[in-house]
Amino acid sequence: MNIGIVGLGLIGGSMAIDLKRRGFAHKVVGVETEPVNAAAARQIGLVDKIVTLEECVAESDIVVLAVPVGAAAKLLSKVLDAYQAVQEGPDSYGAGEKVVIDVCSTKEMLAESVKCHPCRKHYVATHPMAGTEYSGPWAAMSGMFDGHACIICDPEDSCPEAVAKVEALYDTLNMRVIRMESANHDVHTAYVSHISHVTSFALALTVLDKENDEKHIFDLASGGFSSTVRLAKSSPDMWTPILKQNKDNVLHVMDTYIEKMNAFRQAIADGDEKTIRTLIEEANRIRRIIR
Amino acid sequence: MNIGIVGLGLIGGSMAIDLKRRGFAHKVVGVETEPVNAAAARQIGLVDKIVTLEECVAESDIVVLAVPVGAAAKLLSKVLDAYQAVQEGPDSYGAGEKVVIDVCSTKEMLAESVKCHPCRKHYVATHPMAGTEYSGPWAAMSGMFDGHACIICDPEDSCPEAVAKVEALYDTLNMRVIRMESANHDVHTAYVSHISHVTSFALALTVLDKENDEKHIFDLASGGFSSTVRLAKSSPDMWTPILKQNKDNVLHVMDTYIEKMNAFRQAIADGDEKTIRTLIEEANRIRRIIR
Repeated sequence: MNIGIVGLGLIGGSMAIDLKRRGFAHKVVGVETEPVNAAAARQIGLVDKIVTLEECVAESDIVVLAVPVGAAAKLLSKVLDAYQAVQEGPDSYGAGEKVVIDVCSTKEMLAESVKCHPCRKHYVATHPMAGTEYSGPWAAMSGMFDGHACIICDPEDSCPEAVAKVEALYDTLNMRVIRMESANHDVHTAYVSHISHVTSFALALTVLDKENDEKHIFDLASGGFSSTVRLAKSSPDMWTPILKQNKDNVLHVMDTYIEKMNAFRQAIADGDEKTIRTLIEEANRIRRIIR
Repeated sequence: MNIGIVGLGLIGGSMAIDLKRRGFAHKVVGVETEPVNAAAARQIGLVDKIVTLEECVAESDIVVLAVPVGAAAKLLSKVLDAYQAVQEGPDSYGAGEKVVIDVCSTKEMLAESVKCHPCRKHYVATHPMAGTEYSGPWAAMSGMFDGHACIICDPEDSCPEAVAKVEALYDTLNMRVIRMESANHDVHTAYVSHISHVTSFALALTVLDKENDEKHIFDLASGGFSSTVRLAKSSPDMWTPILKQNKDNVLHVMDTYIEKMNAFRQAIADGDEKTIRTLIEEANRIRRIIR
């Protein structure tokens, strides 16, 4: 199978490596408009060749849109339009079997944007829940997806053959596939992914604000601080549109979070050991869920 | 040298393992009043024998108080009293060269509590900044301290020989020793350690509160969420007294943190992409400091 990857960053690049290495892809072509990233991808050898979006659509059985969610919406329409043009035109290259997927962290607005597209069934909405705090082609690595969950949203809106192909792709990446509605997806990811990025950004801002002596932060940061603040290294290109698109869900979770912080603050201000202990014991219940 | 460790949990147990294994300690005795922990320490073979506090003081050149900060204050007075009794009594076992250290995360109140003790110079205040989110003797492990920083507070209040012995001990554990005043220590640890525990507890409470379906948390939690929430597994026995003793510093940092969260909240509520991006870019500066 030929795979086309649009956006050769952490996610797209890591997919390119393992889909080729594990034999799922016969050929991997890539689209990368950022010249530095394109040069790096070429140098690392992430893909067989760098092509234009049009070439990518023409040459690939599956097109993966691995770009931030704002850009993905525009590209998704373009790719579906291209599928439609080919189906209606004389020069059919078998667009009927082609599939396009995205890998974005928010789903509802994207789903909404192509809801009525005649080629909607060729699109499968996916969210492979894996990554690191680094970005760019040099951050791509083999094995990054192994053992993590991948959500396929609204599979009933895609044709079964397209979903089956995409499941085979994620099976190659050793991911557990979970099916879910877009709207539900966005609620759950606000809870378990988006809020932890916001808390991490706020933590970094606090420490950078209070601790003017960077040497002290470096010296005193033990493993605990490093792991809590790790996500604060995440890219604004990726996270600005996520926080914008998932606004309502994120605000709802942030409000609960700020409530919990205020409860802690009050207990500490009151010197109320019993309440502090109770709050910590309740938080400890996360042990049963996250190992 | 003979080492006595009071409290055979994560910190005490890990010290026991490496001080013996690396030849710094000829003999390691342990005090553990919690029967289950004592039995576990015996079974794992963390120490050569379990003894009473009195035996520990009598047999050890260095006594390590590896218990939560509230208990440490009481034990520290007891040990210094015992040193004093021996110095004044007829049955001298060389108390003049004995040293007691604590390993607590807050320092000012502890320093204050023994400020006028006649044997103050036998006490060295230390804070090895290493650990995991687990506790108890079964969490103890070799190499846990390697490469991390250890703060020695107010070394001028201890006798130079005692400080030298303690530095040799931490050198065996491969720690970088930093000297600092107690009051300063408590300000800095509020910034880089205590606040990240509070944000992690609040995150766990939020997710547990909003996401009633635990299966979903488990399924959707990617590496990012796990690392941010990791510290929420930390023990209430350890953290309740820390948050109480370092109250003023912690409240000050929490206020800044809540301000930053509210700034984020406002920007997201306003759909103000420019401000969201600026906040994330500022937070990204942590990249230069934490690898």
